[in-house]
Amino acid sequence: MGRVTERRKVIRIRDGVISTRPDTLVAEEPLEIRLNGKPLAITMRTPGDDFALAAGFLVSEGVLGEAHELQNIVYCAGATGGGTSRSSGAESGGGSNTYNIVDVKTAPGVVIPDITLERNVYTTSSCGLCGKASLDAVRTTARWAIDDGEAAPVRLQPELLASLPDRLRASQRVFDRTGGLHAAALFTEDGELLDIREDVGRHNAVDKLVGRALQNGALPLSRTILLVSGRASFELAQKAVMAGIPVLAAVSAPSSLAVDLAAESDLTLVGFLRGASMNVYAGEHRIALRTAAAHG
Amino acid sequence: MGRVTERRKVIRIRDGVISTRPDTLVAEEPLEIRLNGKPLAITMRTPGDDFALAAGFLVSEGVLGEAHELQNIVYCAGATGGGTSRSSGAESGGGSNTYNIVDVKTAPGVVIPDITLERNVYTTSSCGLCGKASLDAVRTTARWAIDDGEAAPVRLQPELLASLPDRLRASQRVFDRTGGLHAAALFTEDGELLDIREDVGRHNAVDKLVGRALQNGALPLSRTILLVSGRASFELAQKAVMAGIPVLAAVSAPSSLAVDLAAESDLTLVGFLRGASMNVYAGEHRIALRTAAAHG
Repeated sequence: MGRVTERRKVIRIRDGVISTRPDTLVAEEPLEIRLNGKPLAITMRTPGDDFALAAGFLVSEGVLGEAHELQNIVYCAGATGGGTSRSSGAESGGGSNTYNIVDVKTAPGVVIPDITLERNVYTTSSCGLCGKASLDAVRTTARWAIDDGEAAPVRLQPELLASLPDRLRASQRVFDRTGGLHAAALFTEDGELLDIREDVGRHNAVDKLVGRALQNGALPLSRTILLVSGRASFELAQKAVMAGIPVLAAVSAPSSLAVDLAAESDLTLVGFLRGASMNVYAGEHRIALRTAAAHG
Repeated sequence: MGRVTERRKVIRIRDGVISTRPDTLVAEEPLEIRLNGKPLAITMRTPGDDFALAAGFLVSEGVLGEAHELQNIVYCAGATGGGTSRSSGAESGGGSNTYNIVDVKTAPGVVIPDITLERNVYTTSSCGLCGKASLDAVRTTARWAIDDGEAAPVRLQPELLASLPDRLRASQRVFDRTGGLHAAALFTEDGELLDIREDVGRHNAVDKLVGRALQNGALPLSRTILLVSGRASFELAQKAVMAGIPVLAAVSAPSSLAVDLAAESDLTLVGFLRGASMNVYAGEHRIALRTAAAHG
């Protein structure tokens, strides 16, 4: 893609010494996601993996769950839109595609839930608008419960979890140059790195991971660990649940609602994962706590 | 409000030693913002300062700019909504107000721009959807240019900027307990702290600052410095521009589009503000660079 980073001039001040040089910044541009030709959402994202981002977004919204439900994804003509209904509102411009509008076509027969950016799912809940309504919305749209299938339950050693952040950082390609990217990585229960994505928005990084998995027919992501470089908000916990991921680990703090959703959905939620220290907020049955104490 | 933090049980693992204790988490709940009774947006936020958040959000969207344009803000009945048109979709619930829906009433005569959550402003631009369209949208909705009025131009010593992050941290009330809050602070050009707000979402923290200023008749926020605890995205730069703030300083990295907007809007953008080091990405005429070198 070539647009993951961009160069800008910067004036650096280091202990009073001034220098001017080119600096590498994380690229940020809007992406409009359309569903069967209808505009659905605009997100500010780092260009690249846009089809995966759109697919993953639609997994989080409960639209997609299996690869066969996705017919195709195309870039819409942005600048050259002119008079087509697909690009209504876009005047005829310079003639080059901006690659900032994608249209996701679902396969025939796929039922589209009533989703809008206003997220009416929250306000139609019986309790008005509250945290419980947000939890209810996830429960009613989730395709599958988080479970370990017929194999032995997932049970992780704390030492394995503790090793993941270093491996995430070692695999981050752009972060070291810009400092402006969030990263999300998917690991097997044995700590094998399956995929890593970076984006200016942490939710986009997760959507890109989940969208790739959908495209590869890998949903639900049973027996995997999702590691995020920052905090664990409700939105990230929601994305984990909607993808069937059993373990969400964050380097920083979770929010109250993320913990509530994890507890309700049997999602294991680990926060403040730093060195040999971590906090387990929910789903502790997947963490080998006794073994850790014996090894401590 | 009493809901800025919430307590949850946590299992702590510290070098193999396990303990269970209550933990303080940042509270996260949805807030629906209505404009003259019509649902406009839902944001996941930390409860508290909700009226300021709603007012600031509407400043960023170009709806409000002066205190007299705001008639009032009220909490809607959430759970007790029943059959009123204002809370359509909400069934009759437990009877207590969730305090998660606010309705902003504009004064008679205030013209409401055509804004929707789909942010059509982007797609109606002549270049389709691209970074330039995002910049154009800010330029066409901004109430005022960033300028220093009739006084001497703002000119900041790097040492003053360098002192601000420590003062932000010293003033953060909740961060130390949860680690989950973003902070935004407003300073005078002399480094005097005017206001500080914290939220699970960095954009909400800025909206709360700006909304307070609107309510106090203090917009545009000329000759002030906005400091944010994290990164500087396009969205945060947009909020600074829309509030007339001349200097945005971030502890971490800016994005490409934030730098582009700053350069176009004459916003001074400082990133990686850490110790005596910082990067100046735009608007360097407000930084006393020569003096810094002499003092170095």
